[in-house]
Amino acid sequence: MTRSVGVLLFSDFELLDVFGPLEMFGMLTEDFSIRLISEQEAMVASAQGPRSVIDDHFAGTRTYDVLLIPGGRGTRREVENANLLRWLAKAAGHAEIVASVCTGSALLARTGLLDGRRATSNKLAFGWVKSQGPKVLWQPRARWVEDGKFFTSSGVSAGMDMTLALIARLHGEARARQVARWAEYTWREDSADDPFAAD
Amino acid sequence: MTRSVGVLLFSDFELLDVFGPLEMFGMLTEDFSIRLISEQEAMVASAQGPRSVIDDHFAGTRTYDVLLIPGGRGTRREVENANLLRWLAKAAGHAEIVASVCTGSALLARTGLLDGRRATSNKLAFGWVKSQGPKVLWQPRARWVEDGKFFTSSGVSAGMDMTLALIARLHGEARARQVARWAEYTWREDSADDPFAAD
Repeated sequence: MTRSVGVLLFSDFELLDVFGPLEMFGMLTEDFSIRLISEQEAMVASAQGPRSVIDDHFAGTRTYDVLLIPGGRGTRREVENANLLRWLAKAAGHAEIVASVCTGSALLARTGLLDGRRATSNKLAFGWVKSQGPKVLWQPRARWVEDGKFFTSSGVSAGMDMTLALIARLHGEARARQVARWAEYTWREDSADDPFAAD
Repeated sequence: MTRSVGVLLFSDFELLDVFGPLEMFGMLTEDFSIRLISEQEAMVASAQGPRSVIDDHFAGTRTYDVLLIPGGRGTRREVENANLLRWLAKAAGHAEIVASVCTGSALLARTGLLDGRRATSNKLAFGWVKSQGPKVLWQPRARWVEDGKFFTSSGVSAGMDMTLALIARLHGEARARQVARWAEYTWREDSADDPFAAD
């Protein structure tokens, strides 16, 4: 079974929030196929400059098994985008797994889907993210958090550790360790081991 | 002074070889501006699927201060692309720094520019890479190698550690550590510390 991984892109998304996880999923070509999604643009520019070509738009009818929501400074604007939040709530409802990196959890929080659930985010933007979801059980010390079908990670690089945990849940730890080795990546396997939490 | 970072893309490049380093450079918007380059295509697909929009082509007249060469399975084809190797030799001649990730060093080796120099590459493709440059002093145990203006890294994730070392050379170690912290990335600062080398 090949699962579809749908990635929400918006202007000023953070490069590594997207392509760190996609490197890990992309190693398993039989298990995951990747689609990049935007509201309506044909291409979307990251906060760092490089632009990505979009595969699907909100108006489409596809659903995704795994939904990935990156952060980046664009999230400060998109938390006020009602059309995006509506699409996100619907797409998350269809998904088997919903995962966010960095301030992507602010977007998820604004849909209400994280209310009463444990979640985390970038430690350098934590106050702002918390303000986007007062009913979320925000975890200030966590590399990533799993609560039911929701995976939320800390800043940028933490998305890779979270994705390996997600692969471990779906395909076993041995497979996740193999992916990490192929990528010559040292997987921080303990979700509670967060060197970037405030003291 | 803002340095231009030119990144060579070709079909089936490895996502994280490109976007790990670009995340690190991209954090320093005053110091680095990023351009994606291909032979002639308007967009280029990675080995993992996602496509990037190209800024410049070989026929252009721009030069780049930092030249980045990723790996990925596309390198197996491109080592035979005489037009690409000719462009690469010329662009590397103009560059202040030339950096490769993973099997990107096979392309550099084929230009002859690494002859007599120390260099490294992905540990899972090391035999093939060595065969592309018999006069290169290949280092089997190194997270990355610096020799003059040439930086070469091990597989995939090692490109981020190498890029932080490159930023440290140009802007000091404190700046490189700050970038790593912003990305919540644990920088492996010792280039000789290679957990993926064969025993």
